[in-house]
Amino acid sequence: MMERGHNPQAARDHNRALILRLIRDAGPTSRAELARLSRLSKPVVTDIVDGLIRFKLVKETTKGETVLGRKPILLDINREALWVMGIDLSRNHVDLLITDLLGEPQRKMSRRVSFEDEDAGYPERVVKYVTDIIRDSGVDPARIAGIGIGYPLPLSHAQRMIVSEGQVVGWKTVRLKELIQKEFDVPVYLDNDANVAALYEKWYGQASEFKDFLFVLVGNGVGCGIVIGGNIYRGTHGIAGEIGHMSIDPNGPRCLCGSRGCLETLVSVPRLLSLVLEEDVKAGREGGVPTLEQVCERAARGDAAVVDKIREMSEYLAIAITNLVNTFNPEAVVVGGAMARLGESLRTPLLGALASRAHPLFADKTKVVLSNYSEEAVARGAAMLVIESFFQNPQRYVPELANGVRSRASSES
Amino acid sequence: MMERGHNPQAARDHNRALILRLIRDAGPTSRAELARLSRLSKPVVTDIVDGLIRFKLVKETTKGETVLGRKPILLDINREALWVMGIDLSRNHVDLLITDLLGEPQRKMSRRVSFEDEDAGYPERVVKYVTDIIRDSGVDPARIAGIGIGYPLPLSHAQRMIVSEGQVVGWKTVRLKELIQKEFDVPVYLDNDANVAALYEKWYGQASEFKDFLFVLVGNGVGCGIVIGGNIYRGTHGIAGEIGHMSIDPNGPRCLCGSRGCLETLVSVPRLLSLVLEEDVKAGREGGVPTLEQVCERAARGDAAVVDKIREMSEYLAIAITNLVNTFNPEAVVVGGAMARLGESLRTPLLGALASRAHPLFADKTKVVLSNYSEEAVARGAAMLVIESFFQNPQRYVPELANGVRSRASSES
Repeated sequence: MMERGHNPQAARDHNRALILRLIRDAGPTSRAELARLSRLSKPVVTDIVDGLIRFKLVKETTKGETVLGRKPILLDINREALWVMGIDLSRNHVDLLITDLLGEPQRKMSRRVSFEDEDAGYPERVVKYVTDIIRDSGVDPARIAGIGIGYPLPLSHAQRMIVSEGQVVGWKTVRLKELIQKEFDVPVYLDNDANVAALYEKWYGQASEFKDFLFVLVGNGVGCGIVIGGNIYRGTHGIAGEIGHMSIDPNGPRCLCGSRGCLETLVSVPRLLSLVLEEDVKAGREGGVPTLEQVCERAARGDAAVVDKIREMSEYLAIAITNLVNTFNPEAVVVGGAMARLGESLRTPLLGALASRAHPLFADKTKVVLSNYSEEAVARGAAMLVIESFFQNPQRYVPELANGVRSRASSES
Repeated sequence: MMERGHNPQAARDHNRALILRLIRDAGPTSRAELARLSRLSKPVVTDIVDGLIRFKLVKETTKGETVLGRKPILLDINREALWVMGIDLSRNHVDLLITDLLGEPQRKMSRRVSFEDEDAGYPERVVKYVTDIIRDSGVDPARIAGIGIGYPLPLSHAQRMIVSEGQVVGWKTVRLKELIQKEFDVPVYLDNDANVAALYEKWYGQASEFKDFLFVLVGNGVGCGIVIGGNIYRGTHGIAGEIGHMSIDPNGPRCLCGSRGCLETLVSVPRLLSLVLEEDVKAGREGGVPTLEQVCERAARGDAAVVDKIREMSEYLAIAITNLVNTFNPEAVVVGGAMARLGESLRTPLLGALASRAHPLFADKTKVVLSNYSEEAVARGAAMLVIESFFQNPQRYVPELANGVRSRASSES
């Protein structure tokens, strides 16, 4: 990105977006308070707020009690000004949400369809589901600001529906993002599920107090959302955070990537289930592959085979987290994904394993917390891709903001 | 850091620093070209340039041949406007440099003194060396802009001269940065040697074309300088990049940090020398611990014991680099430090080991290059700490810039 000088137009755009974010974060709030927080003059703030009210992104409200006199007029985001769609494309289902401008879900839909259902016209199905939920919700399609999609694959693959490791090979030519963008004529954001779940944790979950944190998603595989300075760090080609292929044991099992002893070969929900199954078979216990729910229950009541396997995985996961902490020195690591449903049964052995691996320099510095697993994390995080973009650059979504008639006061900015 | 609005004063400071950087990067260059590059108006550029010339940071020059007419007047950094000091505090010597504003060394000094020489008054010695080199160089102490120091320990330790792992314990109360700052009354920057050597690679070495790269320093230990968007990423507590304690083999040798099989226990210059010594003893070869120079020579002529040990270390180093690449997805990894003096003898086995470990997604995306090892890398990189700060915020170093009389043209900015 080429550096450029600050000219008045860029300064106005910056200031407008800043005021909008301050209203979101501090609101309901007064014009005077916004001037104090932004260090902009009151006339400049008033001018910006006038524009935001004119285009219905901000509304005036009153709050609190006053014994005498008028209640103060405060400003708040008009959260129903625009709608946002968040989609979780997972291996075997598609979950869709419509949220308001602050990310609160208003309508939900879930459909079972698998990546392997190539013949079922997967991409066209996704388009149909988007159409369906818009129709069912009754919202005006013209007021959909954008669509965010979370996808359990590296971003560069997801962009083109090219899939690594042999899954969904037939999709090589489908460009899902372009397909949806063309169909609905709104900005479409596609990102890795670990990245969008990290956004969920930042806005609604365990990471709201952290600017720099890592979100480690353990589900069918292992991924990592890296948040630096409040923003997702994606790396040079958009594929940062592929920690599933961190080497944990150089002499470990062969991985599909070609290396050995990668984290994903040692830690994942399917591996946990199959290790428990092995123990069950050894013990003559019947019932086939247990579900994660069953494993959670057995762990909670101290079933030895399950506890043992969770401890084993905790050791491997602790090595990975320690490596990440030593490298990134983040404020916190949030461990999420379906594995987090184990709750306390995972937390205790994991924190124990971490304590024994931690470098003294880092030992007390980084908080490691378990996510309160939410089924909606990926879809809501995906909606945040759109919402964060909106609050960075509202004039992209409401171009009239930038073209609005300038009042007298704005000439001083 | 609190977000704030763009006001005219902040915009002027931003624009002035931007013009100064553009002159450094594109210079000698014309006012018209600066306006084009910055997208600022010509009167604004002219006004800024006038100020920079008035305070002697920029000078007018002519360049190129013209057949007829006047040569165009171009602008260039007045590199002797201010001087900068860079210091490499290594385990057993102190190297000092005075550079010009573009980081070119003008005067050098090297003194042998070890971290273990506690009784010798190490901190006071450093102060004396700084005094000595300023006196010997004949530069006006008032024109020293600042002092940068590189230090082979994590930043938080270096700040306070507290040292991990049992070295230099007696220094716990010495605050080197404050001591030097007080003595010389200039900004002092202290940073980890891997971070400042990364800056050296960015400005003068193998990384000049990269915005996002990792510099892996292999010397007495292993460290990593992380450069994201052209800036060093230091983490929440300033200790990011401690990859020496990345777990390579969970069942490997016990490390001083309390964990097992850390990268530093498997890869370092001292370990290479001692492994070669072991082989020599087994083979009945005499001569004690070989020097790195001797090992380099033997590697170059294909000495089997040496080649074998370098290959072993290459395997471990490749695991660490692969983990970093999968996590950060950088443009490039530069491998430096004294180990890089092995040159081709290290490069070939290292690239081979990397190829066999690489995830297909990353395989062709990240360049891995060997540093052209320079004895001056840490001292010159340390000077860059000051120089980068100067080019971000010149008004901090020359306050008159911000207070200068404003010309007519500046009122439009």
